[in-house]
Amino acid sequence: MVLAMINLADLTTPYLLLDTAKMTRNIDRLQAHMDKLGVTLRPHVKTAKSIDVVRRLFTNGVGPITVSTLKEAEYFAEHGFTDITYAVGISPDKLPRVLELLRSGVTVRVLLDSMAQAQAVVSYAQKAGVTIPALLEIDCDGERAGLTKNDPKIVEIAQLLHENNQFSGILMHAGGSYHCPDKAAKEAAAEHERATAVAVRDTLQKADIDCATVSVGSTPTAHFAKNLSGVTEVRAGVYVFQDLVMAGLHVCALSDIAISVVATVIGDRPDKGWIMTDAGWMALSRDRGTAQQELDQGYGVVCAMDGTPYQDLIVSSTSQEHGIVAVRKGSKAKLPPLEVGDQVRILPNHACATASQFEGYVVPDNNELVFWPRINYW
Amino acid sequence: MVLAMINLADLTTPYLLLDTAKMTRNIDRLQAHMDKLGVTLRPHVKTAKSIDVVRRLFTNGVGPITVSTLKEAEYFAEHGFTDITYAVGISPDKLPRVLELLRSGVTVRVLLDSMAQAQAVVSYAQKAGVTIPALLEIDCDGERAGLTKNDPKIVEIAQLLHENNQFSGILMHAGGSYHCPDKAAKEAAAEHERATAVAVRDTLQKADIDCATVSVGSTPTAHFAKNLSGVTEVRAGVYVFQDLVMAGLHVCALSDIAISVVATVIGDRPDKGWIMTDAGWMALSRDRGTAQQELDQGYGVVCAMDGTPYQDLIVSSTSQEHGIVAVRKGSKAKLPPLEVGDQVRILPNHACATASQFEGYVVPDNNELVFWPRINYW
Repeated sequence: MVLAMINLADLTTPYLLLDTAKMTRNIDRLQAHMDKLGVTLRPHVKTAKSIDVVRRLFTNGVGPITVSTLKEAEYFAEHGFTDITYAVGISPDKLPRVLELLRSGVTVRVLLDSMAQAQAVVSYAQKAGVTIPALLEIDCDGERAGLTKNDPKIVEIAQLLHENNQFSGILMHAGGSYHCPDKAAKEAAAEHERATAVAVRDTLQKADIDCATVSVGSTPTAHFAKNLSGVTEVRAGVYVFQDLVMAGLHVCALSDIAISVVATVIGDRPDKGWIMTDAGWMALSRDRGTAQQELDQGYGVVCAMDGTPYQDLIVSSTSQEHGIVAVRKGSKAKLPPLEVGDQVRILPNHACATASQFEGYVVPDNNELVFWPRINYW
Repeated sequence: MVLAMINLADLTTPYLLLDTAKMTRNIDRLQAHMDKLGVTLRPHVKTAKSIDVVRRLFTNGVGPITVSTLKEAEYFAEHGFTDITYAVGISPDKLPRVLELLRSGVTVRVLLDSMAQAQAVVSYAQKAGVTIPALLEIDCDGERAGLTKNDPKIVEIAQLLHENNQFSGILMHAGGSYHCPDKAAKEAAAEHERATAVAVRDTLQKADIDCATVSVGSTPTAHFAKNLSGVTEVRAGVYVFQDLVMAGLHVCALSDIAISVVATVIGDRPDKGWIMTDAGWMALSRDRGTAQQELDQGYGVVCAMDGTPYQDLIVSSTSQEHGIVAVRKGSKAKLPPLEVGDQVRILPNHACATASQFEGYVVPDNNELVFWPRINYW
């Protein structure tokens, strides 16, 4: 799937550089943790959206994977993946594309948390003469979608799906773990996620509904879980690349971040203490995920081309194609002696958001650069 | 350039809807204002990045246009545009692509604000045996790049370019106008931008350097300028679509916003007062440009499919493919009775950022829908 060898002379900035050695270390680290806990990892490919990346997650190429769009599902199905969970609440307009995938022999599980969705899915499946496996979304921390643990609708909806052979299990996402900087809080979030899932499974079992899938996950809870008994699978996405938000949450170190935006210095403003680069928000994304953390990293941490961060140097503001680089407020560090034409690497706040601004990854491979395309859009 | 007729049944959300009647009104309004002031408009195509949109800005198809990337320059050159200003500080790595465009007969003006850039451009042009027309960037409000009005480097750099027949004039961007909600402040920003430009032009003329181009622009100052004498051209981009930031600045009304993200309801949380849609930050972008304005519009204003805003209904938070819709804090409005499968339209904070999340525009055309592709990336 490598689109083309890249001629370094043709490569203009900004571009997205992927360090596969760091990526492999990130992949191996979480896989080892999951193996130790005896749980299947179902990686969320919404971060990478690239077959070249995702192939490196599996010794065989069929999944299981989680997707955030049907375009991802279709793309990975084309590349041989046959076990896909579409982890965004299903709406009726999406069912024809799900059906087409099912008919091609791919297992696509849909997600829902209301009787209206369950009825729509059951009715569509009956009309089409197929089985659409469905997961019931459970909320464990009030962050997003899902039914709460004691909601009687859980059994009602599962019952309807179960009667139609469509009930596949439950799924939850501990989004609240993103607000847990300290270790004990992340461990507690992971245990709360597990315990909530197991309690719901038990409720369903009491109603004679078997819960084949008990799916949990978020990158922080996946790394900090100490016990996953009762859970059948864990989902995580960001871990493949890691990012500044994860570093701020102590899920990884800065040196684990596998993607960076390569930018060129296009000017400076000594009167302001600024260096200007050609990586604005179009390249870095508008994500300011570290703004609520202890250490606000602006629009990204600026590093030399060898990957070493400059002391306290961040992208302090952006416009579409301009990044203003400055020393963090309160720091006494000096601006490095960067001149027009010099290149820097910028570590992203949020890997999913920054990567989505690019058509693909520039990947050093021996002494060459290759291009790994992404599947953006819907 | 219309890629394909779209089958409505194949159209899954989120997608980007373009109302060409509103767009035409926006285009005509600013063009009429520029005509009245006797100044050329050089639209910034970084907002639309679409030949189908930009064709509607000109009675002939050759520009002048402003671009933010060389990819835009190459794309519009392929479509017959011959007068292009690349309004981001030039770095040496970009010059081969500029050269290729120049050799194909397209005028591409580059932008710079340092002696290092000027020397690089002059030396590259000499080696290549071409003339690379260059504009000197002037700063009028401390927002971004450029030399300030009285900097002696202005004459030094212009002199070097002038001696090599490369000096094309000056360019400035009144980014500070984005912080001017009241009319008098926007009018003052426009006059300050004009007066600064004219003062720099006069300084250069005293040094016997002719300033053929005196280029100013920002969407707010373009609309609120009352006098542009001495200015040869105005640049603006967002005005074509308008957005919530511009509405918050009273540059336009909500009803002028020509693009919206169509989303489907995928669930609700009555316990939280939330409606969930499938337009998260991947569709809306992470831009929170109204966060600093008097009225914070969250991630966008939610409208019925006919374009009428629901009372105080905004996208209050997002994750990658989830948008949480809620009534604005402090409002007593009720959630509209939206159900799973219903569609809504979401007005964007920032047209440039939201449009860049999509491959193109879905455009109602008589009783059909057509697709207008964008030229994203670099």
